[in-house]
Amino acid sequence: MTEMVFRQLDVSTAEVDEIEARYEPLAAAVRELVAATILSKAGAEVVSDVLAAVRAATARLQAEVDSDHAGVNYNATGRSWNWGNAGSGQRNAVAPPIELVTNPDGSTYADLVLGAAYEGPPGCVHGGVSALLLDHLMGVTASKMSRPTFTGTLTLRYRNPLPLGPVRVEGRVTREEGRKVFVEATITGSSGLALEADGVFITPTWSPSLEATQN
Amino acid sequence: MTEMVFRQLDVSTAEVDEIEARYEPLAAAVRELVAATILSKAGAEVVSDVLAAVRAATARLQAEVDSDHAGVNYNATGRSWNWGNAGSGQRNAVAPPIELVTNPDGSTYADLVLGAAYEGPPGCVHGGVSALLLDHLMGVTASKMSRPTFTGTLTLRYRNPLPLGPVRVEGRVTREEGRKVFVEATITGSSGLALEADGVFITPTWSPSLEATQN
Repeated sequence: MTEMVFRQLDVSTAEVDEIEARYEPLAAAVRELVAATILSKAGAEVVSDVLAAVRAATARLQAEVDSDHAGVNYNATGRSWNWGNAGSGQRNAVAPPIELVTNPDGSTYADLVLGAAYEGPPGCVHGGVSALLLDHLMGVTASKMSRPTFTGTLTLRYRNPLPLGPVRVEGRVTREEGRKVFVEATITGSSGLALEADGVFITPTWSPSLEATQN
Repeated sequence: MTEMVFRQLDVSTAEVDEIEARYEPLAAAVRELVAATILSKAGAEVVSDVLAAVRAATARLQAEVDSDHAGVNYNATGRSWNWGNAGSGQRNAVAPPIELVTNPDGSTYADLVLGAAYEGPPGCVHGGVSALLLDHLMGVTASKMSRPTFTGTLTLRYRNPLPLGPVRVEGRVTREEGRKVFVEATITGSSGLALEADGVFITPTWSPSLEATQN
């Protein structure tokens, strides 16, 4: 069995907020760099200079890296942070720029804009990126922000191509049976409905391992 | 209907290869920067310096950007390039570092290593990243490298958590019915089988729009 460790760290909420605010602009800038690396027509000399600058910048950050993944952390007041999450991590430039909103009835949505880094078919969002968005949104919807859930089964029906640009993702819980939470979701874009999805999410029987550390 | 334009460009294969070789090391370096942005404990001064360096590097690349997405391109000899593809683009630092192998019987696989940028549950690959890998591999498997296909339906069964680290993705066509291609795939990791997937991929009735341009 793969062990998942949710770490309790002795870091104040003010400090967590400060670190998040320190790194969010950098993650946004790295996202722009990702897109420019795809799109630029710059020649060998410019690319060589940029490569050296990126490596130097990375080395400065790496000098203060002491782990190979960010994990999911929380502090004594219940503030949690999950900065590396590929679906939503505030410090992860791979993650689509998503901010979920929960409606009073528990349904959820997010409006976001997807650019060059998320392309699949020409001018359209990659089907796997749509799957990443849906898995993330549906998992959060199932969790109701109050319990861990894991994806059990996810069925995605691709109805129409999803153009790059503005995108809306919406989800809602349709029913629960024991530890199973059933969730439906859609993605719509500038051409209308693109995907419909059904998912079964599982609330685990085990408690996550909680590891208290002093740093 | 969303228009998809596959562009024929007047660029020699040697030049395409040269551009790809120029940018691939940069995309690899940007991937390292993405991970370092997640993991670093560097303080405000270092992060501020790195932010300025990243923005300056990005500006140099952006000075020679004239489009908002990379598209899918090919030349008169049939060399195609799809550098921005979120599942596999050689210049896209969002894309997992995947190189597919096709077996003589048409089945496919890829071995790759997934690090901090692809995390979901602590120490494990994000379920949506697994979906991205599967959608990409299954689409390529369905296309047999000789025809366009689009994802119709994708069903993912998450069997066990997938630890970060070495991962194998495998796919094969199980049958075809008219324009439908049925594909099965799995992901295994260091703890064994993590996901099973079934997909229906569609070969379109329309020909892609082919647009010949002179640059």
